[in-house]
Amino acid sequence: MNSRKDRVCRLNDPACTSHPTETEDSCSEKPELDYLFHPKSIAIIGVSNDMSRESGGRDYLEFLVKNGFKGSIYPVNARGGRVFGFDIYTTIKDVPDRVDYVISAVPARYNRQLLLDCSAKGVKSVHVFSAGFREISDKEGKQFESQLTAVADQKGMRILGPNCIGIYCPETGLSFDINLPRRSGPLGLISQSGSNSIYAIREAAARGVYISKAVSYGNAYDLNESDFIEYFTHDPGTKVIAAYIEGVRDGTRFAKVLRQAAKIKPTIIYKAGATDAGTRAVASHTGAMAGSDRIWEGLLTQAGAIQVRNIEELVDLVVLFNYTSPLRGRNATIMGTGGGLAIEAANECRNAGLAVPLLPAETQRRLFDIYGTEAGGSFRNPIDLYFGAWDVFEKAINIIAECPQNDLLLMYVVLGIRPETEAGLVRAQVGSIIASGKLIAKRTAVVLLSMGPNKFSQTTFETQTALCEAGFPVFPSFTRAASAVSKFIDYHERHSKDPDT
Amino acid sequence: MNSRKDRVCRLNDPACTSHPTETEDSCSEKPELDYLFHPKSIAIIGVSNDMSRESGGRDYLEFLVKNGFKGSIYPVNARGGRVFGFDIYTTIKDVPDRVDYVISAVPARYNRQLLLDCSAKGVKSVHVFSAGFREISDKEGKQFESQLTAVADQKGMRILGPNCIGIYCPETGLSFDINLPRRSGPLGLISQSGSNSIYAIREAAARGVYISKAVSYGNAYDLNESDFIEYFTHDPGTKVIAAYIEGVRDGTRFAKVLRQAAKIKPTIIYKAGATDAGTRAVASHTGAMAGSDRIWEGLLTQAGAIQVRNIEELVDLVVLFNYTSPLRGRNATIMGTGGGLAIEAANECRNAGLAVPLLPAETQRRLFDIYGTEAGGSFRNPIDLYFGAWDVFEKAINIIAECPQNDLLLMYVVLGIRPETEAGLVRAQVGSIIASGKLIAKRTAVVLLSMGPNKFSQTTFETQTALCEAGFPVFPSFTRAASAVSKFIDYHERHSKDPDT
Repeated sequence: MNSRKDRVCRLNDPACTSHPTETEDSCSEKPELDYLFHPKSIAIIGVSNDMSRESGGRDYLEFLVKNGFKGSIYPVNARGGRVFGFDIYTTIKDVPDRVDYVISAVPARYNRQLLLDCSAKGVKSVHVFSAGFREISDKEGKQFESQLTAVADQKGMRILGPNCIGIYCPETGLSFDINLPRRSGPLGLISQSGSNSIYAIREAAARGVYISKAVSYGNAYDLNESDFIEYFTHDPGTKVIAAYIEGVRDGTRFAKVLRQAAKIKPTIIYKAGATDAGTRAVASHTGAMAGSDRIWEGLLTQAGAIQVRNIEELVDLVVLFNYTSPLRGRNATIMGTGGGLAIEAANECRNAGLAVPLLPAETQRRLFDIYGTEAGGSFRNPIDLYFGAWDVFEKAINIIAECPQNDLLLMYVVLGIRPETEAGLVRAQVGSIIASGKLIAKRTAVVLLSMGPNKFSQTTFETQTALCEAGFPVFPSFTRAASAVSKFIDYHERHSKDPDT
Repeated sequence: MNSRKDRVCRLNDPACTSHPTETEDSCSEKPELDYLFHPKSIAIIGVSNDMSRESGGRDYLEFLVKNGFKGSIYPVNARGGRVFGFDIYTTIKDVPDRVDYVISAVPARYNRQLLLDCSAKGVKSVHVFSAGFREISDKEGKQFESQLTAVADQKGMRILGPNCIGIYCPETGLSFDINLPRRSGPLGLISQSGSNSIYAIREAAARGVYISKAVSYGNAYDLNESDFIEYFTHDPGTKVIAAYIEGVRDGTRFAKVLRQAAKIKPTIIYKAGATDAGTRAVASHTGAMAGSDRIWEGLLTQAGAIQVRNIEELVDLVVLFNYTSPLRGRNATIMGTGGGLAIEAANECRNAGLAVPLLPAETQRRLFDIYGTEAGGSFRNPIDLYFGAWDVFEKAINIIAECPQNDLLLMYVVLGIRPETEAGLVRAQVGSIIASGKLIAKRTAVVLLSMGPNKFSQTTFETQTALCEAGFPVFPSFTRAASAVSKFIDYHERHSKDPDT
């Protein structure tokens, strides 16, 4: 029998040979589910060529074309016709080729028959984009999902969704949006929500971190968070795992898979909180049961995963794991311009559990020697420098780099104090930071504070991009930088003490 | 005798007739210190015409000219000459006019003699921009400050600073930066830090809120936070008071003045935190003593002030007091597109102490009637709408506006999901929100979530500006919106229960 459950390789299955046992750390073979990300041919069901109407299927056709999908694409719609130069087949059964992967964008009620047709065609996996299943209050929705379940179980087909945007894999050109980056990176992303997955991808890319594969899995009728965490644990292209999860049905398996993942790769989990309103919103969104916050906190800590509370924090941690070396300790040196900001930086660091110790007298003296005066600034830590004296700034950075007490250098750059006149000076400041990149980037965080309308400027984006390209993690506020760095240090402390978590 | 202390009108002075007693709520006369903001003539000391050198004095000359200062300006420098079409006087004594206000940008050691000259000239108040006094570790700095003190006391002159950027008053064109807004508004701003005052002004302006007067007061040798809180309490142009404070010397007077202010106007205080590093940074910055967090929290709560922990939160509260009516209760209705985001919104609201109750069946039914399906969304609260169905969105807003349970409508708008194709749709969504402005703006908060590079785009700024102009408070994240709204409700609850706080 070829039922859904038999075909999943689980870590607790003693007969499995393609995955590491609990004591092994790597896997030489291609991990289970890899075929999902590498289909040679895709059929998209529900592609309308009536341009006056919205068509989710036509959107997917466009996504694949625009993202340079490397295989064959077969649009399907009962009415036939042509669209974007493609013939539209009236049924998947007419497609004159093997079909590896199906994207279904037809209304919920048509999916039962579609699955039967897919089975007849020998399709192994179907991504059901369509909504209107368990997550809606209508009784019919639950009925449609049961039908889907029954057919998939009976026919041994893997289902992604329903009610999800599916897979993004820059390597193969599989995509769930029109212009996601074509570049691959170290982050394996799992998100029960479509909007949150796009949010995370765009935010990470804006800070220089790209995706190995991303999966948005919706109602998780079949393929779920545990399947993909397991996949990313063994995917050689994935160095960091991050997941947005609304609810989990098999807690025992999830805990096991998560522990295994976190042992090998940094694993960051944003579990949608379990307030009453959040739980109701989760039910309306993907029909999941949210579970209590307390239980989740314990589970994630025990597994050695990193808990975050929103997409911004998830991306902040991903950014650190991408750029930053494990830090030797919690001593931060703060360096920038603007005394009030220096104080805020110091307090946010302390509140997040970092230390901001007085600099050694020798280091202070060396800074004094190059600046000549302390008026309008301070060399004690925070180091508050006079805005504009950037000719010696690189020297000052080098002095801090050599200071044995410094574990982390937190630099801040301010844009928008004097939008019309500051550009050259800020370029000089950022230029010095970038020039010191090789020496310090791996133990530095840069806070880019952009004020007022300047926050929305191309200059701010270009400054951020230049810093990222030079290897620096960039944050938009002291609060976010300090909190992420502290969690990053927590993680390394825990994992160096106890290699089993 | 005309000593500094005699000339200050204090609320505890029974002889004072120009200020309200503790039981009165308004003051018909111009408040004490008003003359500081309305000088008819200003002398700037330390204006160099050597363009190859930085000159703080020349900067101030430019600020006054560019901000359209309405009185006479007299640059002073021992070397004389001309700059920007102005004659430079070699000493203030040569200025052929009365001088109401002096800005000193000469090094610390020259300020004692300057004060003597100012006194001879009959100058009432001097703003000492120069740094290098009590805040530096050098013994000389403290000595310079003592000299300043002695002369000012002896001559009965008011000193602003030293080590501060001074006054910004759009009405008269007095300014501490080159292109601050020319428009006046309801916010009276006090900041011990220069960078933080500019930060707050630019951030508030970007969200549609302008300044009545702003004072950056540095080391606070003489004029201090209490003087200006008292001034703003009675200034008819100021509707909201916000202050960034590093340390206070006369706690008893501060508590009294603050209580009086908070009784009459919303008073928002960001006290630089009292961590060890923060305290050291404060000492290096303005030489103030920071005091313990616990004491400050008690003091601010008892006075009926609102405590915030950074400039962003300070501006968030100011924005609410500018746009929003006191809310009837804590029931938030959340409305936007993207299920994951809706869940985050719901959880952040609940974590901040707001309620997100299920919508009444009747309201859900009416929403269903206009959308026709619940698939891909939810009408329960959060209301998660299908992106693009904006033709009926205004109707949906009206339905929520009529729902008796709704105290606050929290709407979110997403930019950057599909940067190339979404512009028209987002415009339609924002257009519907703006069209409903008269009906709902005073009890709505809009979260403008902009993703990836779009965050830095002119479109994002224009969208924010359009919403602000239509009377909506706009926030960059759910966390910040929910936290600020909750503090805003706390404030009104406290003040409606106890009119004395």
